Amino acid sequence: MALRVLEIIFFFYFASHIPITLLIDLQALLPGHVYPQPLRDLLSWYAEEFKDPMVLDPPHWFKSFVFCEAVLQMPFFPIAAYAFLKGGCTWIRTPAILYSTHVATTLIPILAHILFHQFPTKPHPGPQTDRERWLLVSIYAPYLLVPLLLLLTMLLSSKYNSASKAGSTSGKAKKKN
Amino acid sequence: MALRVLEIIFFFYFASHIPITLLIDLQALLPGHVYPQPLRDLLSWYAEEFKDPMVLDPPHWFKSFVFCEAVLQMPFFPIAAYAFLKGGCTWIRTPAILYSTHVATTLIPILAHILFHQFPTKPHPGPQTDRERWLLVSIYAPYLLVPLLLLLTMLLSSKYNSASKAGSTSGKAKKKN
Repeated sequence: MALRVLEIIFFFYFASHIPITLLIDLQALLPGHVYPQPLRDLLSWYAEEFKDPMVLDPPHWFKSFVFCEAVLQMPFFPIAAYAFLKGGCTWIRTPAILYSTHVATTLIPILAHILFHQFPTKPHPGPQTDRERWLLVSIYAPYLLVPLLLLLTMLLSSKYNSASKAGSTSGKAKKKN
Repeated sequence: MALRVLEIIFFFYFASHIPITLLIDLQALLPGHVYPQPLRDLLSWYAEEFKDPMVLDPPHWFKSFVFCEAVLQMPFFPIAAYAFLKGGCTWIRTPAILYSTHVATTLIPILAHILFHQFPTKPHPGPQTDRERWLLVSIYAPYLLVPLLLLLTMLLSSKYNSASKAGSTSGKAKKKN
C-alpha cells in the first residue's frame, strides 16, 4: 500500500536524522573539543568535497537553524520514527505538519544562499560554478523534499484525516483506509 | 469573549499586512521604478532611522523570505482577514497553522541576524549597539509573536478543535464555545 511505503520512508528519514544531527550538524554549534577527531575530519572532508562553508563557518542566520534542529527537532525525531514505523498513528498528524512546515521553510533561505550568494574562496571555499552550486543543492534538497512529501501526506491521506482522529468516536464517522 | 478578541487581533494583523507587503516589503524584491518616490523615500527613512540594511540591500537568504511573502502569504492575507473578521471559521485552522509555523520560522534567522551579525556602517548602516539591535528586533518581533499567538489559538481553542470541524456532523459531537 502506497501509504505504508511513505510511512517507511518517513521512518528512515527520522531515524537517520538522529545520528546526522548529533554527529554532523551540531558540530556547527558546539565547541570542537566535544567531538572526536575522526568526526571533525569527516565534517572537514565534507565541507571541502562539497564546498559547503556554512557547516564550518556558519553565518548567524544559519546557526539559528542548527539551534532549532537541536532544541525543537531532535526531541521529535524518535517520536516520529516510532509513529511511522508503527504506522497509522493519527496523533502524529499535527506535530508532523508543524515539523514539515518548519523544516521546509528553513530550506528556502539555505537553497537561495547556495544558489545566489557570492562565496569567498577563503578561508573556507564556497561553490563558485553552477555545477558546484547544484551539487550542494542536491545535498540539502532531501530536507526540503521529504518534509514536503510528509506535509502532503498528512494533509491529503484519508487515513490521517478520518473523522475518527483526535479520539472522538461517532456512530456516523466513516473510516477510510 | 477572549477568543473573539483574538480573532479581531488576527483580523487587523492580516488586513494591515496587505498594504505593508505591497507598499513596503516588496520594494526589496521589485525594481525601484515600480514605486513612486514618496514610498521609496519612506523606505529609505525607515532604513536609516531604524538602521535596517536588509530592506535596502537584502542578502539572498532574506530576499527568499520576501519572495515567499509575495507568492505564498499575500494570497492568504485577505482570506484570513475575512475568516477572522467573520469569526468561528474552522476551515481556516489548518491554513492558519501552516501560515503561522512558516512565518514564525522565518523570523528566527532574521532576529538572529539582527542580534548577532557584525553589520558594516556603509553603504547602508546596520545596528551597532545593543540598543539599536533591540530597537530593530522590536520592529520585527510582532511578526513572530502574533503568528505564535495564532498557532497556539488554532491548536488549543476548543472552538477551532471541535469534532464538528471539517464539515463532518456527528450526533455525539460536543460543541464547546
